Amino acid sequence: MASLTCTASDLVPLLSSSSSTNATALASFLCTRFSTISDQLSDATHAIDNTYLLFSAYLVFAMQLGFAMLCAGSVRAKNTMNIMLTNVLDAAAGALSYYLFGFAFAFGSPSNGFIGRHFFGLKTYPSPSGDYSFFLYQWAFAIAAAGITSGSIAERTQFVAYLIYSSFLTGFVYPIVSHWFWSGDGWASATRSENLLFGSGVIDFAGSGVVHMVGGIAGLWGALIEGPRLGRFDRAGRSVALRGHSASLVVLGTFLLWFGWYGFNPGSFLTIAKGYGGGGGYYGQWSAIGRTAVTTTMAGCTAALTTLFSKRLLVGHWNVIDVCNGLLGGFAAITSGCSVVEPWAAIICGFVAAWVLIGFNILASKLKYDDPLEAAQLHGGCGAWGLLFTGLFATEAYVNEVYPGRPGRPYGLFMGGGGKLLGAQLIQILVIAGWVTATMGPLFYVLHKMKLLRISENDETAGMDLTRHGGFAYAYHDEEDLSLTPGFMMTKIEPTNGSPSEGQTSPSNV
Amino acid sequence: MASLTCTASDLVPLLSSSSSTNATALASFLCTRFSTISDQLSDATHAIDNTYLLFSAYLVFAMQLGFAMLCAGSVRAKNTMNIMLTNVLDAAAGALSYYLFGFAFAFGSPSNGFIGRHFFGLKTYPSPSGDYSFFLYQWAFAIAAAGITSGSIAERTQFVAYLIYSSFLTGFVYPIVSHWFWSGDGWASATRSENLLFGSGVIDFAGSGVVHMVGGIAGLWGALIEGPRLGRFDRAGRSVALRGHSASLVVLGTFLLWFGWYGFNPGSFLTIAKGYGGGGGYYGQWSAIGRTAVTTTMAGCTAALTTLFSKRLLVGHWNVIDVCNGLLGGFAAITSGCSVVEPWAAIICGFVAAWVLIGFNILASKLKYDDPLEAAQLHGGCGAWGLLFTGLFATEAYVNEVYPGRPGRPYGLFMGGGGKLLGAQLIQILVIAGWVTATMGPLFYVLHKMKLLRISENDETAGMDLTRHGGFAYAYHDEEDLSLTPGFMMTKIEPTNGSPSEGQTSPSNV
Amino acid sequence: MASLTCTASDLVPLLSSSSSTNATALASFLCTRFSTISDQLSDATHAIDNTYLLFSAYLVFAMQLGFAMLCAGSVRAKNTMNIMLTNVLDAAAGALSYYLFGFAFAFGSPSNGFIGRHFFGLKTYPSPSGDYSFFLYQWAFAIAAAGITSGSIAERTQFVAYLIYSSFLTGFVYPIVSHWFWSGDGWASATRSENLLFGSGVIDFAGSGVVHMVGGIAGLWGALIEGPRLGRFDRAGRSVALRGHSASLVVLGTFLLWFGWYGFNPGSFLTIAKGYGGGGGYYGQWSAIGRTAVTTTMAGCTAALTTLFSKRLLVGHWNVIDVCNGLLGGFAAITSGCSVVEPWAAIICGFVAAWVLIGFNILASKLKYDDPLEAAQLHGGCGAWGLLFTGLFATEAYVNEVYPGRPGRPYGLFMGGGGKLLGAQLIQILVIAGWVTATMGPLFYVLHKMKLLRISENDETAGMDLTRHGGFAYAYHDEEDLSLTPGFMMTKIEPTNGSPSEGQTSPSNV
Repeated sequence: MASLTCTASDLVPLLSSSSSTNATALASFLCTRFSTISDQLSDATHAIDNTYLLFSAYLVFAMQLGFAMLCAGSVRAKNTMNIMLTNVLDAAAGALSYYLFGFAFAFGSPSNGFIGRHFFGLKTYPSPSGDYSFFLYQWAFAIAAAGITSGSIAERTQFVAYLIYSSFLTGFVYPIVSHWFWSGDGWASATRSENLLFGSGVIDFAGSGVVHMVGGIAGLWGALIEGPRLGRFDRAGRSVALRGHSASLVVLGTFLLWFGWYGFNPGSFLTIAKGYGGGGGYYGQWSAIGRTAVTTTMAGCTAALTTLFSKRLLVGHWNVIDVCNGLLGGFAAITSGCSVVEPWAAIICGFVAAWVLIGFNILASKLKYDDPLEAAQLHGGCGAWGLLFTGLFATEAYVNEVYPGRPGRPYGLFMGGGGKLLGAQLIQILVIAGWVTATMGPLFYVLHKMKLLRISENDETAGMDLTRHGGFAYAYHDEEDLSLTPGFMMTKIEPTNGSPSEGQTSPSNV
Repeated sequence: MASLTCTASDLVPLLSSSSSTNATALASFLCTRFSTISDQLSDATHAIDNTYLLFSAYLVFAMQLGFAMLCAGSVRAKNTMNIMLTNVLDAAAGALSYYLFGFAFAFGSPSNGFIGRHFFGLKTYPSPSGDYSFFLYQWAFAIAAAGITSGSIAERTQFVAYLIYSSFLTGFVYPIVSHWFWSGDGWASATRSENLLFGSGVIDFAGSGVVHMVGGIAGLWGALIEGPRLGRFDRAGRSVALRGHSASLVVLGTFLLWFGWYGFNPGSFLTIAKGYGGGGGYYGQWSAIGRTAVTTTMAGCTAALTTLFSKRLLVGHWNVIDVCNGLLGGFAAITSGCSVVEPWAAIICGFVAAWVLIGFNILASKLKYDDPLEAAQLHGGCGAWGLLFTGLFATEAYVNEVYPGRPGRPYGLFMGGGGKLLGAQLIQILVIAGWVTATMGPLFYVLHKMKLLRISENDETAGMDLTRHGGFAYAYHDEEDLSLTPGFMMTKIEPTNGSPSEGQTSPSNV
Repeated sequence: MASLTCTASDLVPLLSSSSSTNATALASFLCTRFSTISDQLSDATHAIDNTYLLFSAYLVFAMQLGFAMLCAGSVRAKNTMNIMLTNVLDAAAGALSYYLFGFAFAFGSPSNGFIGRHFFGLKTYPSPSGDYSFFLYQWAFAIAAAGITSGSIAERTQFVAYLIYSSFLTGFVYPIVSHWFWSGDGWASATRSENLLFGSGVIDFAGSGVVHMVGGIAGLWGALIEGPRLGRFDRAGRSVALRGHSASLVVLGTFLLWFGWYGFNPGSFLTIAKGYGGGGGYYGQWSAIGRTAVTTTMAGCTAALTTLFSKRLLVGHWNVIDVCNGLLGGFAAITSGCSVVEPWAAIICGFVAAWVLIGFNILASKLKYDDPLEAAQLHGGCGAWGLLFTGLFATEAYVNEVYPGRPGRPYGLFMGGGGKLLGAQLIQILVIAGWVTATMGPLFYVLHKMKLLRISENDETAGMDLTRHGGFAYAYHDEEDLSLTPGFMMTKIEPTNGSPSEGQTSPSNV
């Protein structure tokens, strides 16, 4: 690479006479330097943007750990191994299916508005349109959707059913949706070059609809078709809380999801090294990214506080589990509009999201719908609210900065931007609900009919860990120890949970 | 944006004759390119610095999860939900109060030396003086202070009292302190343009005083006013350890705090793209940032090892909980001087910090002061030591690099820099102790007099989780399972802990 | 720093006449600008690369937390405090020893091929060859090796022995190995300027050999010399699973290791701001880094899925613990070749790694070798497979991009690159096995002969937490609470585990 620097003695001879030879030499001298500078600036920009996107992808991946801990803590101890295994497998099976075809369906441009068709197995990738960091980032998103669904059907679903629906969701249902709304080719995308839906396209920046509603509605059908867990509603039809076994894991999972959401929402800009208004000022995409982190924080925090006080009034105690769910509901809602609304609007978003969740939970209880993680209510309900919220509160300036090159595009109804964006958002809600229902509904139904969906009553009572996963997740007290302690005989006659297989330490014997 | 590159054919005509027209065209040609280059370099620098600050902010936020796990593990199981809820709320309530006014009090420049007055609700923000990433970073710091305090008063404080003091601390007490020492306007700030305190200003780089002492002293008053937990000192006045319920959570929390501290200390540089000595060399702010990560690591690790061997000698066993606390004490101490001392000095810092913590813990035990997390001793005591340490060991070169533009400023006493910096650090200790005492002391006292501070004896015995938060945090063994197991009758006649509310699974019945 | 921008009025006078004075002034004008641009580009590049490396180092550090949780969950509850303390101490003691001499042995260039000799105590550091970020990154690697070993010898090793071998491994054995294969001076390094081993040098990009085999083989000798845990093989010699006490901690640890591996493998590029092919295009080191993250993901995920189905066939249930170990085996294997193979090859790598682990586990069981974390099998066995894999599948293009400046170097045998690279990889396996055996073997043997290695039978039965670390890690049920509950007398007569020391809350009394 040519040198960027020079000394006066290089240039003085060239400048001192205006002969044509010198002019050519000088021109070449200057152009080489400008070209080198241009290359180095391009390299630096690529490096910055890829660093930003890769670390954002790592944060989004950390959400999978968050889901695992949240789910584990929210189920009963006897099903902990089962639910954690599904979370590990979301990531693992998702990596293979997304690599082989999911990514191609979603982002294989150029293609039509309905499905992508390049980059199967990352063939001819990376390309000018995207690098490996983009693939990794999108994979981390894809596995989140399946993670949401696993919460809805926890504690009563056969492992084989899990493997089937998870692959289908991550490899096909979700990629198609992300193509529609996020690919530049997608029929409803706001980044499409022409024929935008209602002249606007849908603004689902980080996926209140594409990720959260998809996961939530898939979960809704799964949970509806297999019905509530044993004991979830008593003989009189009253709701009986089947409490999760560890609030510590729930809080751990919630905080990890919060942490990861900073990759999910601000990371969805994909690049950071871009000045707004021509560049060179203090205001640029980095500011929009920071603002997105702030709106995300505000929505979640407001929803958490709203839930805290609402539940105190409704139920009578300060409930950390409910606060965690409220927080996550606020995040799920702001995810669509996080980049195009003001922080004060995010507070409104979170406040409403908390009530949306409370409302859907009451409704679920009335309808005897059992969702151990409240996933359909939270990701489906608050996700849908988030899409509407964007249609109401997106500001003109931010919409044009984030989706540039198309002056005069619609924005939020309450901000004076007309109803077209809101209309597009409504279409998205309907289309996602319809598509997921049309694909996942039949799948769960067929599994149900083939007796592959729900576990046996025995398995459900004993817990899947013991019957299907080789044992209980915990053993805080070892039998050996106890047998060495005098007086142990007395507890010995109490039953152990099931008969531990030969050669294995049984769990604590109470 | 204009092109950066050119071809010889663009330039040769302009250079071949020296007509005035061509001179103007050439000048315009060159200036446009330089201007474009300047803009792109500015954009790249903004992108780098914001990427650096945002991810640092995410790490600092992860400390809130660390606090939650550390606190949860350090209390008895019956108060786990309570303490975790306070940690979630620190972050949530802190986001709203810091957004509405805390940030304005702290960094609303231009203002006077005592309190800021711009950017309420982020109005007129971002500005050339700061971007959203800076707000997010400072919010993550603000909530850390309240988190420290919650440890001191754990297991016996009413939830309402918690909500009140936490908002007051995050929204007012802490922002004022951070204004004094960190805002360019602050009366004791080392970045003030003139009239520096003792010609030096205080060097509290990442907040041994501003964050840790504030949180620790607030906790001291809370814990003093409400007194020790029931059973913490026996009838003869001897100290009785009320051990936390999970060492795994303590270690998890400690490691997460360590992880987050790499955002806390190195992140406090706020920017990274700055060469030292004119730029262009291998040495720059990135080196100072790396060194800060190293000094932080060294201080914590030395304190951990010192604690390990000291406690082995003093108590007779290898105690992981004590080692974790020692480690955190080392971190709290180095936080002030991390950017301006050599790695070898950080080892001294950590060694002394371990003994400061041991000493204060012995003192606390003698004075019958009960602090479930040792928060006042650790964050208050080691934090104060850290401020003194900076006054002793700050090197001339590093002080001038980190606080540039003012040659000849004082530095560490032991490094030959005179006593002025040490004097300023002493003033900080006194001022913080005074200010926090004058604000939080009366607040806790009033809450105490209004019977809003301490929970009832019944609540304390039963645990707040059962009486105020809807149940126990853990249920490793479900009743249903047991009732299905033959021979269970025998354990059935053992009592359940309290009477579980109708329709709720009770915790394990031992 | 000189200005980058200009206005036409600055330049027109200089360009309008071609006097020698003006030529000099113009030359100076231009050169100053180019020099400033060069400096700022250099600063930006340093800032980007250091940001990248520092955050990668933080991720690698997070693996220590992952190890701690994985180990904790994999041992019985009675040894949880013990194993977690060793993990904290790996990091803490490792920081001091690596600062004082480990780093100097490893990377103290210029030196000979066998051991480095500069930068003791970071003297004369940073230098043009490396900054603090590099030290921090390498420290995080060094402590990983010791963490691996601690898993092999868990639940039966004296704490003193642990302190001794850990310091020796981190301060001497490991640094020497990393010098050989990673320092530009190392005799087997692929970045050596001349006399490359077999004209190739070893490609162990992120340390399948340097880190994983070293840790695994050290563990093998420790575990062999002290023998299996009590009860691990019954009187008839049959294998008895001594199950870990918490699958949740195992999954938490596994996901954290996965998260950290994105710092471990992609981070090993050390820099990111480098265009390939001359620069200025979309393809550069950032792409290679992204690809490395993808190959890493693919290998781990494939190994996890392979393990899931293999174990289902072999054992009959879906086992999350085995899946976690399989996943980690895939990561350990791909670590060597992650940067120089195609994603599809990574799938092969992971598939074989899963079977390597299964095979070694069967072998271990037959040989009555007891390794509570399967660390020798996983890190040693899969690590060795990974080295061979690189010799088979490394592509020409990637090898030349990642190890540039030496056209025509050997690459993978199956990719048409001949057998020289494979030969070098074989040499590495032998040399590491030999070196670690020659150093750690005698050390463990001497400790064994001095009765410093294995704990007493009493300690092993009761658990080290109670006898050496001050108590049990968990107390989910407090005695006080129970004693307040009517009818508790009945359980009271059941024994407590050991007699809790006066003034300490005992663990749950079942």
